[in-house]
Amino acid sequence: MRFGYDIGGTNIAAGLLNDENKLIVKESRPFPRGQGTDAVIGVCEALYRSILGKADVSEEHITGVGVAVPGSVNADKGIVIDAHNLGFHDTPLMDLLGAALHQPVALINDADAATLAEHRIGALKGTETAALITIGTGIGGGLIFNGELYRGGRKNGTEPGHMVLRNGGRKCTCGIEGCAEAYCSATRLTVDGAKLGHPSAKELIDAARNDEPEALQLFKTYVDDLGSYLASIVNLLDPERIAIGGGVCGAGSFLLDPLRADVEQKCFFKTCPEIVVASAGNDAGIIGACLIAE
Amino acid sequence: MRFGYDIGGTNIAAGLLNDENKLIVKESRPFPRGQGTDAVIGVCEALYRSILGKADVSEEHITGVGVAVPGSVNADKGIVIDAHNLGFHDTPLMDLLGAALHQPVALINDADAATLAEHRIGALKGTETAALITIGTGIGGGLIFNGELYRGGRKNGTEPGHMVLRNGGRKCTCGIEGCAEAYCSATRLTVDGAKLGHPSAKELIDAARNDEPEALQLFKTYVDDLGSYLASIVNLLDPERIAIGGGVCGAGSFLLDPLRADVEQKCFFKTCPEIVVASAGNDAGIIGACLIAE
Repeated sequence: MRFGYDIGGTNIAAGLLNDENKLIVKESRPFPRGQGTDAVIGVCEALYRSILGKADVSEEHITGVGVAVPGSVNADKGIVIDAHNLGFHDTPLMDLLGAALHQPVALINDADAATLAEHRIGALKGTETAALITIGTGIGGGLIFNGELYRGGRKNGTEPGHMVLRNGGRKCTCGIEGCAEAYCSATRLTVDGAKLGHPSAKELIDAARNDEPEALQLFKTYVDDLGSYLASIVNLLDPERIAIGGGVCGAGSFLLDPLRADVEQKCFFKTCPEIVVASAGNDAGIIGACLIAE
Repeated sequence: MRFGYDIGGTNIAAGLLNDENKLIVKESRPFPRGQGTDAVIGVCEALYRSILGKADVSEEHITGVGVAVPGSVNADKGIVIDAHNLGFHDTPLMDLLGAALHQPVALINDADAATLAEHRIGALKGTETAALITIGTGIGGGLIFNGELYRGGRKNGTEPGHMVLRNGGRKCTCGIEGCAEAYCSATRLTVDGAKLGHPSAKELIDAARNDEPEALQLFKTYVDDLGSYLASIVNLLDPERIAIGGGVCGAGSFLLDPLRADVEQKCFFKTCPEIVVASAGNDAGIIGACLIAE
């Protein structure tokens, strides 16, 4: 069995994956913000003991531990290069956590972990070339090439949210004008929706569904932006399938139907790849972390 | 030795590649527009006889023939799916030309051929992950992954010119608004330059170099667009190197220096990949065609 962590700036989630790739026990505790690396390791160790206890599994049955973090990692050296939300910079997490748990520890970026989970057990299963785009506060994602997780040509991973979609347009959190993240994230719907009295992506989409003219116009613009963004990935990579994840997918066919039509129109090839909803769920990060554990 | 064709809508170029990957003889003849497939095969056969004659090489020393075409190909079946400029649609070029030359024939898209040439003998040599972007009337290009030419996840190749750079912006020749091709091609410089009395990319760039304010402003906007476009590829794929080709590269460091600075600023990673000028030259198509011949 394998153990995985999904460390976020708010919570540390962890779980135990059995040999059928099912999470059998999971638990989440608050991230000890501002308390230093030792406190983080302490919470991780407590989660490990607690989950093994609940599952009634002894340590010798754990073959390895994986950790997903929201930031850049050097997987070979086991170092978190930068994870701003965690306050980790050049943090030797593999060694620190390995010493605490007496287990081999592997690191992965959280978007890559989610992509790996989608590929092994979710919406990208069976593909050789595919992409996951996760729509949340920002835009994250990962790529599958040759049936394997793509780690980047220089091992920096992928930052699909910072492809430029409307050059010279609104400023992204990264400082550049016109990134896909500035137009396709849930934040865009929240910010623009607030001006119409619908201060969340869900409320805005509900208003559009109820045919409120301004909300519907904003939603159509969003679909056009997201469609152009996915079409860019399609026209560059000709993937078999793109999965989209995140809360906005809760809109179901109200989003997916016009989105597929939009991408199809902008796809340069005769046929358009499948556009599907991610299915590994909120535990994709933990599952992906488990999957890299040996 | 290998023989290759680069079939374009204006000319058919062909050449003979020796075992050191040098073109030893090359020749070009007009494309027989509107005269049907048989006429094209006739010109190809004449070029074959002529070049072998000039090189004093007999047919039995040719190990294979490759053909680059400006369109989509099914390499396995040896069919040109669509090459609008040639009037080829579902054309079984492999069989037709193979029967005429009594040689095995392989097909490749012309942008892929150029990418292969850059990778084997040009500016992308030694890379595992790289991109070629060719700036001409339109935008073409190809990708290298794992040290090999990428044929697309569904074998449709890549159409990097139709990534969306300014969604909702000026209409591309493909009908979609805001494609990279509409902003980063030499055509954009020609069209916008004409409004300033500089009706070619070269004249516009020369005027900018001479500090003509409006020309300089247009050139800066072009660099910003091209920089954002390359940054999109960088942030998605984290390649080791990007080569740019086409006539605008004649501007040298006047283009390359500000372009590199622009991409570096927009690159999400700590370091930016190399941005270099393609070096396989105008014969890249013929050379790439030869390289796929067995």
